[in-house]
Amino acid sequence: MDGTGLARRIIDTSAATAADIRGRTGTAPCLATVLVGEDPASVTYVRMKRARCEKAGIRSRHVALPASISTSALTEKITELSDDPAVHGILLQHPVGRHIDERAAFEAIAPDKDVDGVTTHSFAAMSFGLPGFVSCTPGGIMRLLDEYGVEPAGKHAVVVGRSPILGKPAGMLLLGRNATVTYCHSHTSGLSDIVRQADILVAAVGRPHFITGADIKPGAVVVDAGYHPGNVGDVDHASARDRAALITPVPGGVGPMTIAVLLAQTVEAAGRQLGVN
Amino acid sequence: MDGTGLARRIIDTSAATAADIRGRTGTAPCLATVLVGEDPASVTYVRMKRARCEKAGIRSRHVALPASISTSALTEKITELSDDPAVHGILLQHPVGRHIDERAAFEAIAPDKDVDGVTTHSFAAMSFGLPGFVSCTPGGIMRLLDEYGVEPAGKHAVVVGRSPILGKPAGMLLLGRNATVTYCHSHTSGLSDIVRQADILVAAVGRPHFITGADIKPGAVVVDAGYHPGNVGDVDHASARDRAALITPVPGGVGPMTIAVLLAQTVEAAGRQLGVN
Repeated sequence: MDGTGLARRIIDTSAATAADIRGRTGTAPCLATVLVGEDPASVTYVRMKRARCEKAGIRSRHVALPASISTSALTEKITELSDDPAVHGILLQHPVGRHIDERAAFEAIAPDKDVDGVTTHSFAAMSFGLPGFVSCTPGGIMRLLDEYGVEPAGKHAVVVGRSPILGKPAGMLLLGRNATVTYCHSHTSGLSDIVRQADILVAAVGRPHFITGADIKPGAVVVDAGYHPGNVGDVDHASARDRAALITPVPGGVGPMTIAVLLAQTVEAAGRQLGVN
Repeated sequence: MDGTGLARRIIDTSAATAADIRGRTGTAPCLATVLVGEDPASVTYVRMKRARCEKAGIRSRHVALPASISTSALTEKITELSDDPAVHGILLQHPVGRHIDERAAFEAIAPDKDVDGVTTHSFAAMSFGLPGFVSCTPGGIMRLLDEYGVEPAGKHAVVVGRSPILGKPAGMLLLGRNATVTYCHSHTSGLSDIVRQADILVAAVGRPHFITGADIKPGAVVVDAGYHPGNVGDVDHASARDRAALITPVPGGVGPMTIAVLLAQTVEAAGRQLGVN
């Protein structure tokens, strides 16, 4: 399942909508990117996201904060952005450092600007099928499945991983589409036996080559949401690709979809806030 | 797994705490019960909850509203209760009638008064292990498991049903306790095969005798959250009890626990709001 082409189309559509919004209101959509500290991977991710925004006609306002910032100073800064009518979406780059209460920082993002889908409000909305923004990676996964005609209803979807912005919302979105959903994680016993039942497997465990071909049910749809240095995912592609009916590559699978959904949701947020819909 | 004795102990503890709060502040904990229409089962449930409150030294303020009430009038009434410092907890009896947006009504309950655990805020808190109130039936199930020494970690828990205040939060609480969790529902294919894998089975599907003994893994822990006329649960006890290591009866299993958790959370909410902790 190639994410690159689909992501490009979503970004093109977002760019067209961004241009339309700018034409009608005089204001371009604006994403605030908040980066705490100077972790090299985070710096790269944020730079990449900002570059994609710019290309799509989305302004970005970068807020670089010292690694030593306190939780209260960080939440205050994010609250300012939430209250600023010139900012339509807010991205707080994860992780923020261990001394910071990341949840408190996420919760300072106003729900209508939570274009990265990280607040508890967005999670509950995904879980209950209510209007709201989706977490970008799970949202990208759902779009990929739709693109490739994978119907989740009645299928057994196994999600390996249960993080608040990846595994948990991915499972809830699949459940909302009527898949039977199993959450596996580090405490799961008999993991291989469960993974082997998956018609749709979402690997979101954050360990390189954690899932191998022997664990994959022949004909399964395999979504690899992992990314590790050296273009390695959570799935061992060499052994998995012959068993899977469909599989996402790393890179070029889920990764580009994440950014595409971020851009699409930023434009959607701007349109709503600027009264263009 | 008998819920009656445990529920009585929880209620006794809540009554002692309620008396303490009243003694120290001059104010008894107060639960507002909101009933829309006159559905006989709902009338009975609310009457029972109010009677238990009264016995435990918790005041109840009953708000009876016509079945014809609009969503906006209902949410306005609930918002009033959320803003009223004399009310410490709010229970909106489900269901409220098809013409009403029940979700909007639930969301009008302030999170710190959501002692029935029905808001999206409470759901996300349960899902992410954050402070907050639990949905009463799932919370009661977890207390029952603890009482009987059932450790969820590493077990495969299968939840049949995915309603916002029963199945979904029950699964999230079990996941938070490190169970591997599978959600099944009306679209699940091969349901029996999946249910037969359950070390812990939560039947929350709302169909009488939907699960029979043949579906139960020998030695499983079976929690029946269903209740149907004639003291019938979602599980066929006659065939299930010989296979299960532990099973909740209907009545006297999950039912009394639901009310006990409601009372415990009301007292907790009052203590917090009145500054007694």
